[in-house]
Amino acid sequence: MENHVNPDLQKERDTATFNVDDFKMWWAGGRKKLAEKRHLEEVFLNDPELTYETPPSYLSYKALHEENIRLVSKATKKFHSEVMVKEVAKNGDEWEMLRKFRNIHAMFLVMGVGQNGLSDHVHFGLYLPTLLSQGTDEQKQKWLTKALNMEMIATYVQTELGHGTYLKGLETTAEYDPKNEEFILNSPTLSSYKWWPGGLGHTVNYAVVMATLITKGKSYGLQPFIVQLRDEDTHMPLPGIIIGDIGPKMGLNNLNNGFLGFDNVRIPRLQMLMKNSQVQACGKFKSTPMSALSFGASMMFVRLGVVNDAAQTLMVASTIATRYSAVRRQSPIGDDTSIEPQIMDHLTQQAKVLPQIGKTIVFKLISDNTWNLYTEVMKEIKVGDFTHLPELHAITCGLKAIFTTDAVKGVEILRLACGGHGYADYSNMPALYCNNVSMCTYDGENTVLLLQTAKYLYREWSKLLQGKPIASTLQYFRSALDVTTEPLQDWQGCVKALIDALEYTTAHKVRMVYEKIEKEKIKGTSQEKAFNKYGIQLVKIAELHTRVYIARTMVGLLKNQRKATSAVKSVLKDAFDLFVRYEFLNNIGDVLQFIPLTGQDVDAYQGCFERSLLKFRTNAVAVVDGFDAHDRILSSALGSYDGHVYERIFEMVKKNPLNQKPVNESFDLYLKPLMKSSL
Amino acid sequence: MENHVNPDLQKERDTATFNVDDFKMWWAGGRKKLAEKRHLEEVFLNDPELTYETPPSYLSYKALHEENIRLVSKATKKFHSEVMVKEVAKNGDEWEMLRKFRNIHAMFLVMGVGQNGLSDHVHFGLYLPTLLSQGTDEQKQKWLTKALNMEMIATYVQTELGHGTYLKGLETTAEYDPKNEEFILNSPTLSSYKWWPGGLGHTVNYAVVMATLITKGKSYGLQPFIVQLRDEDTHMPLPGIIIGDIGPKMGLNNLNNGFLGFDNVRIPRLQMLMKNSQVQACGKFKSTPMSALSFGASMMFVRLGVVNDAAQTLMVASTIATRYSAVRRQSPIGDDTSIEPQIMDHLTQQAKVLPQIGKTIVFKLISDNTWNLYTEVMKEIKVGDFTHLPELHAITCGLKAIFTTDAVKGVEILRLACGGHGYADYSNMPALYCNNVSMCTYDGENTVLLLQTAKYLYREWSKLLQGKPIASTLQYFRSALDVTTEPLQDWQGCVKALIDALEYTTAHKVRMVYEKIEKEKIKGTSQEKAFNKYGIQLVKIAELHTRVYIARTMVGLLKNQRKATSAVKSVLKDAFDLFVRYEFLNNIGDVLQFIPLTGQDVDAYQGCFERSLLKFRTNAVAVVDGFDAHDRILSSALGSYDGHVYERIFEMVKKNPLNQKPVNESFDLYLKPLMKSSL
Repeated sequence: MENHVNPDLQKERDTATFNVDDFKMWWAGGRKKLAEKRHLEEVFLNDPELTYETPPSYLSYKALHEENIRLVSKATKKFHSEVMVKEVAKNGDEWEMLRKFRNIHAMFLVMGVGQNGLSDHVHFGLYLPTLLSQGTDEQKQKWLTKALNMEMIATYVQTELGHGTYLKGLETTAEYDPKNEEFILNSPTLSSYKWWPGGLGHTVNYAVVMATLITKGKSYGLQPFIVQLRDEDTHMPLPGIIIGDIGPKMGLNNLNNGFLGFDNVRIPRLQMLMKNSQVQACGKFKSTPMSALSFGASMMFVRLGVVNDAAQTLMVASTIATRYSAVRRQSPIGDDTSIEPQIMDHLTQQAKVLPQIGKTIVFKLISDNTWNLYTEVMKEIKVGDFTHLPELHAITCGLKAIFTTDAVKGVEILRLACGGHGYADYSNMPALYCNNVSMCTYDGENTVLLLQTAKYLYREWSKLLQGKPIASTLQYFRSALDVTTEPLQDWQGCVKALIDALEYTTAHKVRMVYEKIEKEKIKGTSQEKAFNKYGIQLVKIAELHTRVYIARTMVGLLKNQRKATSAVKSVLKDAFDLFVRYEFLNNIGDVLQFIPLTGQDVDAYQGCFERSLLKFRTNAVAVVDGFDAHDRILSSALGSYDGHVYERIFEMVKKNPLNQKPVNESFDLYLKPLMKSSL
Repeated sequence: MENHVNPDLQKERDTATFNVDDFKMWWAGGRKKLAEKRHLEEVFLNDPELTYETPPSYLSYKALHEENIRLVSKATKKFHSEVMVKEVAKNGDEWEMLRKFRNIHAMFLVMGVGQNGLSDHVHFGLYLPTLLSQGTDEQKQKWLTKALNMEMIATYVQTELGHGTYLKGLETTAEYDPKNEEFILNSPTLSSYKWWPGGLGHTVNYAVVMATLITKGKSYGLQPFIVQLRDEDTHMPLPGIIIGDIGPKMGLNNLNNGFLGFDNVRIPRLQMLMKNSQVQACGKFKSTPMSALSFGASMMFVRLGVVNDAAQTLMVASTIATRYSAVRRQSPIGDDTSIEPQIMDHLTQQAKVLPQIGKTIVFKLISDNTWNLYTEVMKEIKVGDFTHLPELHAITCGLKAIFTTDAVKGVEILRLACGGHGYADYSNMPALYCNNVSMCTYDGENTVLLLQTAKYLYREWSKLLQGKPIASTLQYFRSALDVTTEPLQDWQGCVKALIDALEYTTAHKVRMVYEKIEKEKIKGTSQEKAFNKYGIQLVKIAELHTRVYIARTMVGLLKNQRKATSAVKSVLKDAFDLFVRYEFLNNIGDVLQFIPLTGQDVDAYQGCFERSLLKFRTNAVAVVDGFDAHDRILSSALGSYDGHVYERIFEMVKKNPLNQKPVNESFDLYLKPLMKSSL
């Protein structure tokens, strides 16, 4: 393969209106962070030892696991010395440290080294946060040290074969035995087997297990217990532990998701994490009122991790599809049928690819901003101020649902936009979809999360009616208080007006659902039943609210990008314009119910959107270059920086184990007898 | 596992309003066809030899191929004796015979035996139809015999590494050498390597290859050539044939998709399929004007096959998700928080699952009906009447695009509605998505097909303006001719009115796009450039038109179901109501641009839709039972007839090769050194 770049790609780079290095610097968050990123790339992505010996999709399920463990071991050792030790030494905020662990692990080890999946990720992403939020200082001292030294690798164990979302339905029990000062864990039914935790199958030797505490014959709901699962020396399952891997999935097949049954498993009393609730030696139960809130806070941390991953996923997929759209040529547009244009010149292709680039930028800024909000709210909580907790909870639930849904939908749009090659593993698009679509289900199923956000909106609307103050992000509700108000006087179709229109629409939809539920309640229906009756519409308002929250927040964030050059700012503005027009047209069916636009009006907005595409097209390749994804992160023959698509595909095909012999064994065994059987 | 059925599922069956055996009989198309189906199930699905020895998702890529060839061999032998011999003996219409081959092979062998993929499927689905439509009688005699005896297994070779949709861009050449009366095939570039054909890698020994014919120094466009690829005895690639498997994909990994390069490969002159175009011994080229039409007709056959498969896919997925939604219990709705209801009682779950059942019924009826249309049009063509060909072409392009898009979107909605277990292979939902989403891309990429339908609509609108007759399926265009007409006087929100509204909307959208393109042309823009400029909107009208075609056609078909009992007819009506309301609300953004409904109006339709859900919910399980999918076709722990979900999951997990030893090799090799390294 030659060193030079594909000329079609080079042409795109040459004609960009901004300096891509400026963009990269801004994207990374400044010079220092960019240098740190380069260092991590060098450590994790340029190390030939940290790669699969055979591409993972050729391996059997078992071989993939064994290879995954090899990578876990090698990569985690480096992660320890290059990241953990350094961050611990800083002795800063613990949550800030965990955030760094988690996000670096997700990007460089899970996406990079593991090609979407390493079976110890939950150790960083869920086990450590749980320990931090649920453990007493002594427990943290003991277990954090062990966990940071990797003497133990742990996972977080909650869902069961028959139970997911509804935590009160979980069946696993931990009954306290005051005589021996121990808890006895049991799985009373098949449906109570723990199911799903990453790494549980054969990787971890410890876990935090969520089980219903029973003491003195009384149940005290779910509590977290540290349980040793396997012998530290032999890795053999301990007595009473029934454990294994749950088998192949749509993706993430190197995650070693496992099951776990308990048959009278005993653990010392002090292995219940007791920061918020305690069982005394005598068996007496005590709980602080902050227990549920503290659990909620650590779930928020976890969901923000998912929000971050969703943004990264879309970034990778849009980089691949954009570069491929510049390299691939197909179907003449003009009168000269001998010239096949870059497929990016087809407007239908632009409509698929470019809005996803805009969305990538929006998702990154919103994700970063929400981490910052989280940090602020955690600081408030530390001093006993819980004011912003419900709002943040509603935002993170909504963002987790919308980001993951949109990101994987975006990946699929982009994958399909790559045509046949987007279906081949060598594009990496299948893995991007199949691995990441799980985000819609784990750490809070999206419909369930949207219902939580919706119920918050319902309560806030009620407050508004009562004249009580409502959250700052909900001030737009007021536009729907007076039904007779004329909607939106200044309707010029500018981005500001589109956001106003979406807010106005959302506010009215919230009002309407609220009124229907109240009507039901007056008829004597319980609130829960009324919520179910209007479940579809509740999901809708949560979705709309989250979308207007994103758009409105972005307006503020864009004003505040001091690290961006003016040329970069200008392309960010184009990206945001494109994003808003795309969102507006996608939700036009709701808008038109409240704002009487004609077919002509909508047609004009469609025209604006199409012009936004044409404008953004000029910079599309340069912007994805600015996302600065390392070729190892992209893992794609279609998306690599040099654009040598076909050469790379052919190289990958040569490694195919099926092609090592001209005729495989199955011919003589099976095919020849068929063909020669004179049927 | 006990013999009885899960009680929640039984309860659903007991309360259905119709007799499920009546439904099954109607669904199969009558008593005789049901008996034939049962026989095929016995032959292909109840034969323990026709199953994977290890579930396919545990196998390496190579092992999967070898196992696939074992199944191909065993299953094809039975297919030959049980299907092919019998159908050939009938000596009926050849296309009818091929349709049967293709659809039985797709259902019982590909879906059933192969669990979505057997590497000789293209032999039946594409090679035979090509031979039939492109070969002279002598060629058919020679090659069909060989193909029906399975002496040869062939594939259809068209797309190239660098070229897909735009056939004129294909680079492979077949140059005629009059001296030896041979064609010489060559792949002049890397991008001209043939890419994708199913079975090409290591399964087939012959292929029909589409290559640009060159004779007497002049190029005559694409022609089909029968090329022997491998020795019939040894399976060794013949000289000049560069061949292999293209590697893992998102799904269909037992399809053995291959690549093929030619280095001066010589074939006899008579291996060009010469029904429509001929090269004489001297090298003189002759062509009939019907050549392109004949190619189009065989592509229609192929696309109707895909339409059929899309309908089947949605049927399987909706069966699985519906049964699981009746068995799975979660999250209290009422005041008694100790009772978790069947998840199907959550309205949000109904909104995901039930419309897909309605759509399955619609897709099946439309698919069958379109095959019949096809047969009629083929008969007309035989007597030289081409009147209905363009209309049928536009319909099949649109249906292929909409059926495949909707089917796989539906699968994904249903898969996500199964929560975590829908992500596990044991649900079969991942395979249903990953295998079948390829339908959106192959045999005509969906956007490209929709543009073809759109251009037909454009031309027909133009005819309408000129006062010429237009196709019967486009008569609704007239409602938008006079822009001042009041839309839809009788607006009661009944299903009829909803379809009228969708038609009215579509007609206006067609008009608007037409007017814009004409305006562009007046400005001097070429038609092709104008098409590109309005590509997004053209795709939109094709989509809308296809949707109204489906709905309008269904109205007629439902009136004509004489084999259905009145109780079955009644549930079909419910299903169709649900379908139309779902389609209407999904397209409300377009409708509202032309029909001034208020927020209140739309709210009322939303209410109708939600009531349709509640009504249909009663019969949901019985209807999917009526789809009569064999447990082997479902291949799902979540969807089997008896509803023993958790027991089946646990059984599958026990077979996991990773769980055969309590500790795998990788612990001592990699994990222990990490944990014991005192980091």
